[in-house]
Amino acid sequence: MTSGPVVAATRAQLVDLLAPARAAGARVGLVPTMGALHEGHSSLIRVARGEIGDGPLVVSIFVNPLQFGAGEDLDHYPRTLAADLALCAAEGVDVVFAPGVDEVYPTGIPTSSTNESVTVEPGPLATILEGRTRPGHFRGVLTMVAKLFGLVRPDVAVFGEKDYQQLALVRRMVADLCLDVDVVGAVTMREPDGLALSSRNRYLDAEQRQQALALSRALRAAQVAAATGALSARDAALAELAKEPAVELDYLAVTSPDLAELPDDVPPGTDARVLVAARVGSTRLIDNLPLVIGETP
Amino acid sequence: MTSGPVVAATRAQLVDLLAPARAAGARVGLVPTMGALHEGHSSLIRVARGEIGDGPLVVSIFVNPLQFGAGEDLDHYPRTLAADLALCAAEGVDVVFAPGVDEVYPTGIPTSSTNESVTVEPGPLATILEGRTRPGHFRGVLTMVAKLFGLVRPDVAVFGEKDYQQLALVRRMVADLCLDVDVVGAVTMREPDGLALSSRNRYLDAEQRQQALALSRALRAAQVAAATGALSARDAALAELAKEPAVELDYLAVTSPDLAELPDDVPPGTDARVLVAARVGSTRLIDNLPLVIGETP
Repeated sequence: MTSGPVVAATRAQLVDLLAPARAAGARVGLVPTMGALHEGHSSLIRVARGEIGDGPLVVSIFVNPLQFGAGEDLDHYPRTLAADLALCAAEGVDVVFAPGVDEVYPTGIPTSSTNESVTVEPGPLATILEGRTRPGHFRGVLTMVAKLFGLVRPDVAVFGEKDYQQLALVRRMVADLCLDVDVVGAVTMREPDGLALSSRNRYLDAEQRQQALALSRALRAAQVAAATGALSARDAALAELAKEPAVELDYLAVTSPDLAELPDDVPPGTDARVLVAARVGSTRLIDNLPLVIGETP
Repeated sequence: MTSGPVVAATRAQLVDLLAPARAAGARVGLVPTMGALHEGHSSLIRVARGEIGDGPLVVSIFVNPLQFGAGEDLDHYPRTLAADLALCAAEGVDVVFAPGVDEVYPTGIPTSSTNESVTVEPGPLATILEGRTRPGHFRGVLTMVAKLFGLVRPDVAVFGEKDYQQLALVRRMVADLCLDVDVVGAVTMREPDGLALSSRNRYLDAEQRQQALALSRALRAAQVAAATGALSARDAALAELAKEPAVELDYLAVTSPDLAELPDDVPPGTDARVLVAARVGSTRLIDNLPLVIGETP
């Protein structure tokens, strides 16, 4: 039995809780989440623990209104605090930071045109892929992550590769704003049949659950076909997706690891990434995998 | 005689220099500058020393290309490192942080359309006053200040009230991004005749130097006239400026202390700010003062 994490709701509580460990030179780890924790988050927590050793491990839980667009599922996003705390207890999390909206948005949520808040501008990388259908999403994400870095002051922060564009943008923000945080990416956790773990999977019924497997199958097909080039990888993934008409494709892209466009003539051995987004019923799912051009995995 | 500050050019050097003081729980103070230090900066340094006691006091010197617009004086901005170091030595500064461009802009300076850097978006408050004629200026300033906060990790940072809109926006950024830095404003230093100290005063010839006094005279006239209301304050300042035709007015504004518009009917006792920008010859000067509506200073 573990005693479970301490829950902090304010910066002041957090500062007090972390002060002894900081004074002793321990490394502070942060796993930012929107709650609705599942085995994927457990793996992020374990990666963080590996990075910080005995240092204090903080899991933040905050459903960030700024990263939800109009018509997105902010109001219906699952909120499961009791279960989240149980998972954190089982994983040896030291502190759960669950701030109120006022703590995170002291001058109000910058959604209306009259609000004058300072935000983080992610630049053009936020307008491709997820950004095409979710304008403002990554401004919301980066602003929130910057706030959490300011509130928690972690030495290490762990983000899942599942939200790959988010991970790439957080890395870019840390570089460009000279933030003193090690950003660590954690490999996507999957069900035995390949489905990437996601809080949104709970919206899928049994039939949709089967249909959703087309996404991970397409990514694996791309990995294999990458042996004969980036275009082959893309075609193979699209062919796999076409076999499942219930999957409504949003995008499928083969990019460089930092999401830049690949040149037409990619030399063998080049690292790349294949990313997909699609709707199954009313549920929007995303997934991605690494691949190497000219090599079979 | 003092031994003079240690000069650090990289984050790594800075981290090493500050580590013992941080471990001992000392407060780190930062005075961000673009060099060309004068008595105004000395006063910022003294304010910082008052805040941090024996803690390490860092003066950063970096002429930030991102906050200069096309046609502004980036290339001609005065660079006087030897004299700056002497001033810092005389003021008991512990560390001068003079980073190279690569340290501050690891992925390049985001001036061209192809650059994908993450920046700090200041919001509408950056489009008024200075922002009207200097588009992008405050994005450059806030991005730079965020970088310096990330690099130096100060507990206290001191900014002059001379650049009042900058101070207001830095305060706003710290609140909105939940940064863990105390922002302290330092009162503007003036020549005995009232001219606000500025690195750009050196561009004024003797005649322009006299003409430039119209700015501080106008602000003092506004302070006095505020006894009979905000509109009177504005009118008095404009009347004073009109007496000096060599001064080409850019703006004169009476605002709330956080730069919001004042309502038409301001109750007596309300704190406000009067701000002016004007050209004298080819030199653009700014100045501001506090005032209280309905009260004579």
